Amino acid sequence: MKRIRLILLFLIISICSWAQSRNEINIPDIPGYLTLKCDFHMHTVFSDGSVWPTIRVTEAWQEGLDAIAITEHIEYRPHSQDIQSDHNRSYEIAKPAADRVGLVLVRAAEITRSMPPGHLNALFIKNANLLEREEAMEAIREAKEQGAFLIWNHPGWKAQQPDETKWFDVHSQLLANGMLHGIEVYNMKEYYPEAVGWAKEKKLTMFANSDIHAPIGMKFDLEKSHRPMTLVFAKEKSTSAIREALFSRRTAAYFGDTIVGAKEYLAPLFNASLEIQNPNFSIRNKQVKNIQVHNYSDVDFVLTTSRPSVGVESKDKVVLKAHRTVSIELRGNSEELRKMRQIKLHYKVNNLLVGDDTPLDVEIVVPNR
Amino acid sequence: MKRIRLILLFLIISICSWAQSRNEINIPDIPGYLTLKCDFHMHTVFSDGSVWPTIRVTEAWQEGLDAIAITEHIEYRPHSQDIQSDHNRSYEIAKPAADRVGLVLVRAAEITRSMPPGHLNALFIKNANLLEREEAMEAIREAKEQGAFLIWNHPGWKAQQPDETKWFDVHSQLLANGMLHGIEVYNMKEYYPEAVGWAKEKKLTMFANSDIHAPIGMKFDLEKSHRPMTLVFAKEKSTSAIREALFSRRTAAYFGDTIVGAKEYLAPLFNASLEIQNPNFSIRNKQVKNIQVHNYSDVDFVLTTSRPSVGVESKDKVVLKAHRTVSIELRGNSEELRKMRQIKLHYKVNNLLVGDDTPLDVEIVVPNR
Amino acid sequence: MKRIRLILLFLIISICSWAQSRNEINIPDIPGYLTLKCDFHMHTVFSDGSVWPTIRVTEAWQEGLDAIAITEHIEYRPHSQDIQSDHNRSYEIAKPAADRVGLVLVRAAEITRSMPPGHLNALFIKNANLLEREEAMEAIREAKEQGAFLIWNHPGWKAQQPDETKWFDVHSQLLANGMLHGIEVYNMKEYYPEAVGWAKEKKLTMFANSDIHAPIGMKFDLEKSHRPMTLVFAKEKSTSAIREALFSRRTAAYFGDTIVGAKEYLAPLFNASLEIQNPNFSIRNKQVKNIQVHNYSDVDFVLTTSRPSVGVESKDKVVLKAHRTVSIELRGNSEELRKMRQIKLHYKVNNLLVGDDTPLDVEIVVPNR
Amino acid sequence: MKRIRLILLFLIISICSWAQSRNEINIPDIPGYLTLKCDFHMHTVFSDGSVWPTIRVTEAWQEGLDAIAITEHIEYRPHSQDIQSDHNRSYEIAKPAADRVGLVLVRAAEITRSMPPGHLNALFIKNANLLEREEAMEAIREAKEQGAFLIWNHPGWKAQQPDETKWFDVHSQLLANGMLHGIEVYNMKEYYPEAVGWAKEKKLTMFANSDIHAPIGMKFDLEKSHRPMTLVFAKEKSTSAIREALFSRRTAAYFGDTIVGAKEYLAPLFNASLEIQNPNFSIRNKQVKNIQVHNYSDVDFVLTTSRPSVGVESKDKVVLKAHRTVSIELRGNSEELRKMRQIKLHYKVNNLLVGDDTPLDVEIVVPNR
Repeated sequence: MKRIRLILLFLIISICSWAQSRNEINIPDIPGYLTLKCDFHMHTVFSDGSVWPTIRVTEAWQEGLDAIAITEHIEYRPHSQDIQSDHNRSYEIAKPAADRVGLVLVRAAEITRSMPPGHLNALFIKNANLLEREEAMEAIREAKEQGAFLIWNHPGWKAQQPDETKWFDVHSQLLANGMLHGIEVYNMKEYYPEAVGWAKEKKLTMFANSDIHAPIGMKFDLEKSHRPMTLVFAKEKSTSAIREALFSRRTAAYFGDTIVGAKEYLAPLFNASLEIQNPNFSIRNKQVKNIQVHNYSDVDFVLTTSRPSVGVESKDKVVLKAHRTVSIELRGNSEELRKMRQIKLHYKVNNLLVGDDTPLDVEIVVPNR
Repeated sequence: MKRIRLILLFLIISICSWAQSRNEINIPDIPGYLTLKCDFHMHTVFSDGSVWPTIRVTEAWQEGLDAIAITEHIEYRPHSQDIQSDHNRSYEIAKPAADRVGLVLVRAAEITRSMPPGHLNALFIKNANLLEREEAMEAIREAKEQGAFLIWNHPGWKAQQPDETKWFDVHSQLLANGMLHGIEVYNMKEYYPEAVGWAKEKKLTMFANSDIHAPIGMKFDLEKSHRPMTLVFAKEKSTSAIREALFSRRTAAYFGDTIVGAKEYLAPLFNASLEIQNPNFSIRNKQVKNIQVHNYSDVDFVLTTSRPSVGVESKDKVVLKAHRTVSIELRGNSEELRKMRQIKLHYKVNNLLVGDDTPLDVEIVVPNR
Repeated sequence: MKRIRLILLFLIISICSWAQSRNEINIPDIPGYLTLKCDFHMHTVFSDGSVWPTIRVTEAWQEGLDAIAITEHIEYRPHSQDIQSDHNRSYEIAKPAADRVGLVLVRAAEITRSMPPGHLNALFIKNANLLEREEAMEAIREAKEQGAFLIWNHPGWKAQQPDETKWFDVHSQLLANGMLHGIEVYNMKEYYPEAVGWAKEKKLTMFANSDIHAPIGMKFDLEKSHRPMTLVFAKEKSTSAIREALFSRRTAAYFGDTIVGAKEYLAPLFNASLEIQNPNFSIRNKQVKNIQVHNYSDVDFVLTTSRPSVGVESKDKVVLKAHRTVSIELRGNSEELRKMRQIKLHYKVNNLLVGDDTPLDVEIVVPNR
Repeated sequence: MKRIRLILLFLIISICSWAQSRNEINIPDIPGYLTLKCDFHMHTVFSDGSVWPTIRVTEAWQEGLDAIAITEHIEYRPHSQDIQSDHNRSYEIAKPAADRVGLVLVRAAEITRSMPPGHLNALFIKNANLLEREEAMEAIREAKEQGAFLIWNHPGWKAQQPDETKWFDVHSQLLANGMLHGIEVYNMKEYYPEAVGWAKEKKLTMFANSDIHAPIGMKFDLEKSHRPMTLVFAKEKSTSAIREALFSRRTAAYFGDTIVGAKEYLAPLFNASLEIQNPNFSIRNKQVKNIQVHNYSDVDFVLTTSRPSVGVESKDKVVLKAHRTVSIELRGNSEELRKMRQIKLHYKVNNLLVGDDTPLDVEIVVPNR
């Protein structure tokens, strides 16, 4: 009966090891920049969250994130009967844990007001205690003076914008005075298409953040999906490089199987995800041949043809599944093929969005020997 | 491009709904008793855990548990710089949440001493503050006076029993004085076979508990497995019925795919899990026929033949997979079959253990028309 | 190093057992009828499929089906260079295997013509060889004379209906002459909403079939989903009871998480899937209380409110996840509650369709003490 | 209700795409060689298998294999009542399909005799029909004359070796005459440790093959595991390079989470799988620091310490989970650390076996700044 005990042992080893390891988020770097995976909005027991600050670090490390900000509400602290510490405390508790695993922890806080202006995250601040002010504007001005990057959180949150997602005069004023730099286009499980439009029009940086209050695994099925996150295209993995990238609007919002961002980042990201595995491919008129395309990323790219190819016909729909190779059938339909060294397949990627609901236009370039 | 938005919507619905629903743990009731799924050992930020007390309730409800006890350390409170509340506080915070979802919350605390006597959980106490005593014995006596059920936790924990798992004189004294009633045979990911022997010999009640400090999903893969739990065979789902069952030693320890307990509970539990799906089965000498056995429980039962059947031959190994039907081939090998109205298949169930490593002996009774 | 070998052993046991067991499809019976899970359209190497006939039986048994029909093309046999057997052969090979596991195997064939009339399955025939006729009409008449139930397969298949899904005069003639009884509203991965309308209007029986040619696991992810299937509401599990049910139009089409059928079957099916787990529920004006609803079926029911409840307010959207319990918050908003013994929640079930795209209207009746 | 239809559409896209894509088996190349994933033993309807030959190609491509051999029994053809084609036929049917997707298809057959010599696969033959001989020895000699590589299949198969796994005189003769080159150490779900010993002692090439008869997905859970396969360390992906590698004994047997092979291939394979992600790591006496090790392969490596490190202490057990990063805590315990530029961690890898049950010894070399 030794067997039983050994099987138990093995089981135990397996379970433990899973828990203490780090997932890798496979969204590739793009030329010139690292693609950092970041979440700039979350809470702990020090405001209205339900976990200890170190848990936010462990969660983020296990999921494969590079940087986080813990953003306690300055003005809303429902656990204050039991916890009376100052506004910097959760950062101070989390920082040593973050350092130990190499996670960038951005000092931050959430200025929490009724609409307008609503809730604003202040990133890269120096002292959260100074943000506790009677007047919202004074708190925001203090943040600005500390060098903060300011984000309008969940702009379409029903509790504050019950009927429609509106832009207020206050936001125009903040923008004009350098006190509003970014906007969440996605928060928790909500998407705000209006915010995508504003980001483009008003030159705001786009964010997708979790705004997690509970343990992360209680809200997201981490084995099949991931928390919403902000992809930051940064020169290196550091607080200062992230700050520079945010002020330069080099981000994209990644949630579910969708990424929303500027074409100049999404196009290279798409290209860096793929590899054509037939280097010696060759096709002529009336031939039927398959190219094999491997997708190294975690995203299932859903393609539909945007316009016909010159020289070949192929299916109108292709799904390039994450970490799999798809075989695409091409049918030569032109004598010109004998002279073409490249064939271009023109697609829209339905889950890479460059405006509100505008799919990214891409080309897959197939060599032709 | 309406499509994109709709797909997002659908995705969001799916994700949210998963998180807020309750799993059902399929371990059947046995004749005369409900089989309650319980975890009597866990922590929150009020001692050395890392979640708010209400999270323990939500986790337990989502996983399908019927009852829990939050067992804060009386003597070990590493967050006391930030949290100075009294020892009853986490119960008081969790209780309204438990009532709302119909979860039984047992008032409890962990008396936390070096070995011997080690750590003891006191369940069904009235006031945890009175357990804060200089002397371990005084704390335990106080618990007893409050009517507590006392459990020796993780008796083989390496930090306290580095070389071997020993029973100390102190434990004999506690036992003799009615101040020790149960023992953990499984804690977190550790199994203590010695404790199974002691439970039998010294008439202690067996427990498997999670001793969870972190968010539960960070330590257990809840989609593929479950936290360790104590099965309580109770007359109803209530605090008093659980208390009665514990003092009457009607429990089993369930961890991984293994259940350890007394034969009188495991045998009916096994039988209640199965159904033979050929009511009109009939076999005669030299015939080869299959019976189909469905397993309604969450446990994959791993059977090996204990002794030959009279009348038929069959495979030596059968795994009755959880929630699936297995087809078992029988080969008639006796003319007596024409007179037999029942055929008995004799198995050991390798993952239902009635002593340390002793598999439960069972019979599967097949009708023969 | 004994350990390694034992671990291997255990692994092997686990893998084998999975493969040889039967899944249970949890779609409940309804009052008066068993809900049989059936697939009446599939192929083997004896026409243009790629598996041996016994594989169709094993696949169906493992997936949890109750009945299948192997429907070889009479007129299309691309493997005839290697296989020249007659049209009854695949049935004869599969029958003993089906009997051994208790699967109902319906003798059938597919009359395979260009449109119109397209492809028609003839179920419950006596001799497939007699269906080999020059003229389509003669083949169909022969089938009718053998007592066949005739189904128009994949009526919207692009290869035969490239522009739109049309009903032809020929189909009207077949219908008038008792030579057309059913229609596939779903085939493989294709849904034909027009066929749902015709089924209602012309009193045809609805089917969802797999039309599988390859091994089933190569086309459907059987761990996460299931093949399309026809739910047959039959008086017993037998060929004759299925035949009676088909001629009486007691079926529904089940594919993905959607079921399409008549209200008189879908409504009881929905009700039989659910259980309210608070028998002593009670709510009064201004109270906020939760009811817990368990869904015993494999289908995630996606509900949206169809009209306000009397006495309470609740969320507009609820997903009742398969095999889970959902907690629904009710807010009392009327003094009348003290007199109401029942509260009715009015929903549409978005994935139970009673016409083309018409969701089923349901009531969840909550007791009020 | 447009919504429903769109959701259906999306569902359909997802399901289809999964089925037609290729998995990547992540076992890295080693210096000087590609690591080809091969299965040299399988059947179709042309002997006693149950699928059409093209299915073997599609299965292998989807699973990520590089090369296969279809090895029909010469002497056992239970479907001959329906299929009478010659012994080369299944290769001829499968070859165009293999060429289309770039899979290497090795022409082969299985010489199928009672023990001794048992069943032998002949790979790289020219004409399978010539292997149909009365005498086993004549068939084997014919294979040799065609240039075949000969493998003793499932040497411990209970049906042929009921009591113990024996080596017969006949096998010594075959070996002496250049008519036996390889041996299966793993077949389907069975492991033959004796064969590992013989492979070492008698200089045979080791194989793990599926011997699949049914559709592959019916026997292996391909989402969670993989079929057994032979890793071939070849100079390129071609029939001739595979042949050269087999005759040079450059293979390993990969099944479950275990790889069995020679140290000279397993050691570089282990090293090529890992990356230490702290290039600037530095530790001194009494410091506690973590290194992060990423495992790029599909294998969970189960490590136990083989001997103490110089300079640091660390845990005795580490599981390097597939595609995850594990953080290993090191505790400096020597003043010498200030002079050491490298720290070596000595482990045994319990699931990389270089003899029967002998784990591979490895070093993880950690830089120390």
